[in-house]
Amino acid sequence: MSVTIAPDVTEQVAEVARAARVAARELALLTRAEKDAALLTLADALDAGAQQVVSANEEDLQRGQDQGLPGNLLDRLALDEDRVRAVADALRQVAGLPDPVGEVVRGSTLANGLQIRQVRVPMGVVGMIYEARPNVTVDAAGLGLKSGNAVILRGGSAAASTNAALVSVLRDALEERGINPDAINLLAEGGRDAARALMTARGLVDLVIPRGGASLIQTVVTESTVPVIETGVGNCHVYVDASAGTEMATAIVTNSKTHRTSVCNAAESLLVHREAAQRVLPPIMRELAAAGVTVHGDEQMQRYAEAAGAAYQPVTDEDDDTEFLSLDISARVVDDLDAALAHIQEHSSGHTEAIVTDDRAAARRFTTEIDAAAVLVNASTRFTDGGEFGFGAEIGISTQKLHARGPMALPELTTTKWVVEGDGQVR
Amino acid sequence: MSVTIAPDVTEQVAEVARAARVAARELALLTRAEKDAALLTLADALDAGAQQVVSANEEDLQRGQDQGLPGNLLDRLALDEDRVRAVADALRQVAGLPDPVGEVVRGSTLANGLQIRQVRVPMGVVGMIYEARPNVTVDAAGLGLKSGNAVILRGGSAAASTNAALVSVLRDALEERGINPDAINLLAEGGRDAARALMTARGLVDLVIPRGGASLIQTVVTESTVPVIETGVGNCHVYVDASAGTEMATAIVTNSKTHRTSVCNAAESLLVHREAAQRVLPPIMRELAAAGVTVHGDEQMQRYAEAAGAAYQPVTDEDDDTEFLSLDISARVVDDLDAALAHIQEHSSGHTEAIVTDDRAAARRFTTEIDAAAVLVNASTRFTDGGEFGFGAEIGISTQKLHARGPMALPELTTTKWVVEGDGQVR
Repeated sequence: MSVTIAPDVTEQVAEVARAARVAARELALLTRAEKDAALLTLADALDAGAQQVVSANEEDLQRGQDQGLPGNLLDRLALDEDRVRAVADALRQVAGLPDPVGEVVRGSTLANGLQIRQVRVPMGVVGMIYEARPNVTVDAAGLGLKSGNAVILRGGSAAASTNAALVSVLRDALEERGINPDAINLLAEGGRDAARALMTARGLVDLVIPRGGASLIQTVVTESTVPVIETGVGNCHVYVDASAGTEMATAIVTNSKTHRTSVCNAAESLLVHREAAQRVLPPIMRELAAAGVTVHGDEQMQRYAEAAGAAYQPVTDEDDDTEFLSLDISARVVDDLDAALAHIQEHSSGHTEAIVTDDRAAARRFTTEIDAAAVLVNASTRFTDGGEFGFGAEIGISTQKLHARGPMALPELTTTKWVVEGDGQVR
Repeated sequence: MSVTIAPDVTEQVAEVARAARVAARELALLTRAEKDAALLTLADALDAGAQQVVSANEEDLQRGQDQGLPGNLLDRLALDEDRVRAVADALRQVAGLPDPVGEVVRGSTLANGLQIRQVRVPMGVVGMIYEARPNVTVDAAGLGLKSGNAVILRGGSAAASTNAALVSVLRDALEERGINPDAINLLAEGGRDAARALMTARGLVDLVIPRGGASLIQTVVTESTVPVIETGVGNCHVYVDASAGTEMATAIVTNSKTHRTSVCNAAESLLVHREAAQRVLPPIMRELAAAGVTVHGDEQMQRYAEAAGAAYQPVTDEDDDTEFLSLDISARVVDDLDAALAHIQEHSSGHTEAIVTDDRAAARRFTTEIDAAAVLVNASTRFTDGGEFGFGAEIGISTQKLHARGPMALPELTTTKWVVEGDGQVR
């Protein structure tokens, strides 16, 4: 990738990153008690500053309306005092989570008496590049602080005023507690160049996490020279096996598709074993029709969809690879488990794949052979989530294989260090 | 980075990678017993084919001599029958190591009855880009097979004939056992373009590991769009604290610098607390002089070096950042522990840093504040090594923070998958 970045933006971002590195060294030495107390102070500061944040958010919303931002984006951007309070409460919850830093992952005493142990330590400086979702600003700052990392935040420009207000409140609160405010940094200027400068600040930034749509993530993944964790694109399948129970299949397909359509763990594709089609498709299609889902189906699916009154259109090759994030689903009848496995392996984005089956052998083959962050048997795809998995927090869902795969929480924001203690050993 | 790759090379590499992906799926399903038996077959095949490999190696050596390759590179390239046998034995050792695949890393039963577990699975297709060291070819193939990964090897062109012979023997042996030979692939043609095509085969290759000198690693790290694990550059320091025992300090400095100079865990820099200088530097310099080390030192170091008869030259700023990989060491007297910590943090490559001290507080500060893959107290830097750490094998030493840090063995060649089993749960 050949990308030109305005030199002054590069230098501004480098300056922020250098300040963040200094703060990161200090953060790495804080005790859990100090970090938790700071998180509670941040939460209180947000509560106290809610009015200021909401005013800034109104500016963003006004600008967004003037610029014709779609309703769902405006909704994600909007903060009222209740939402600010919810975001502050999330910080309090992070304070209650265990501190990953200092955890001894493994260790042993070697034959020569050397004692070695692998200990979790903070990453250092973590960059976040995301869309206009102000709650991500606070979540990332909180998870960063808890895991001992300084963060450099680059949120969508549509949330510029809100992010500036939030980060100003958070930095003031850090200072109040005697913590270097450069632990939380916002790249408020420089537009896309600032994001590019962040992802190429190799040596100054230890990790970049993109969060957002496919094109944002693709840009970061291909242009970044800083290590990246790819997150969140989910073309999730539900495969209904020959032996699937009708009620369970109907509930899981419906929930996976319609519980929340704009999220990465929503189902985008339905596969049904031909032997189960006649039994399971009438109730499944009735439920999808009732929820307003458009079925992008093959000819067999067309019959069931139309009989149930569901909106139908012929499935295209492109549909098979599309993350709709809407009330649409691609749907095909398959000959057998092998055909389902082959289809999923070809089109999976490696996020979440589910089988509904009563057949133990089919479940074992599915969980073994499908290569994805999460493989589910008889459960909704919506469960692939840090909160649902009991992590208490989530910074994103990794769809890559390096470092973290699936829901990422506090431990995934750390690295390790080998500590070796001897009494003069040489080789 | 704007890089042009010959389109036919890109397509050739993509074809290899697609074949490797097919093999990887098959490998992922092999049991440990099948993989271990295959490793033993590979080892036997190498023993049986030793003559063929040595002949090919002679071609490479002849070409290398004609082209004026330096002696140390020729030495790393050379294989006689004993060395082939050693490489085969290494495969037998890998067969004896535990299989990381299938290990349950963590798991729980959620409140709603869902059983979740995080299981180690192979990465898939792993690319290795390395210099003209034929043993790496076999090591990488063996570790790849054991961890269930297909490998695509791109070794230095100076070892082209040797690598072709080795991989031919290994692939034949796989076929003999009924294993898809595309589990082990060599990019024999296409020169640097082949390496570039490998590191940009995103979606086909899951991970690229560069092994070699700083410039090779830098190229891969900045140009790759496939996830990379950065390995091996080590600007390792030994800091001799005020309280260090004289004998221990002398032994550790000498061993760290001179035990083997061409390796990444050799010491390249010596820092001595000014209060210890007069006591520890005379014997340290005597030992370094005896080993033929050139001291790149400050003025105080000059005095001790010259008194002991060690070769001396004034230390430059560049020396502070140089991985000599030779009988050279940069050396400075520092005022105190803080100065040592600051110097190391500025110049460390994040590989291995050691302190020699009898002071518990100094040791604790050093291990806590230094940000490196390994921090050692009273031990030679040479211990940062997969073999020494008891891993039984090593694919490289990671100096990055993502995924793996420090010596990498079999578990580091795996990723994880969440397996979720329910009985119809929906949200």
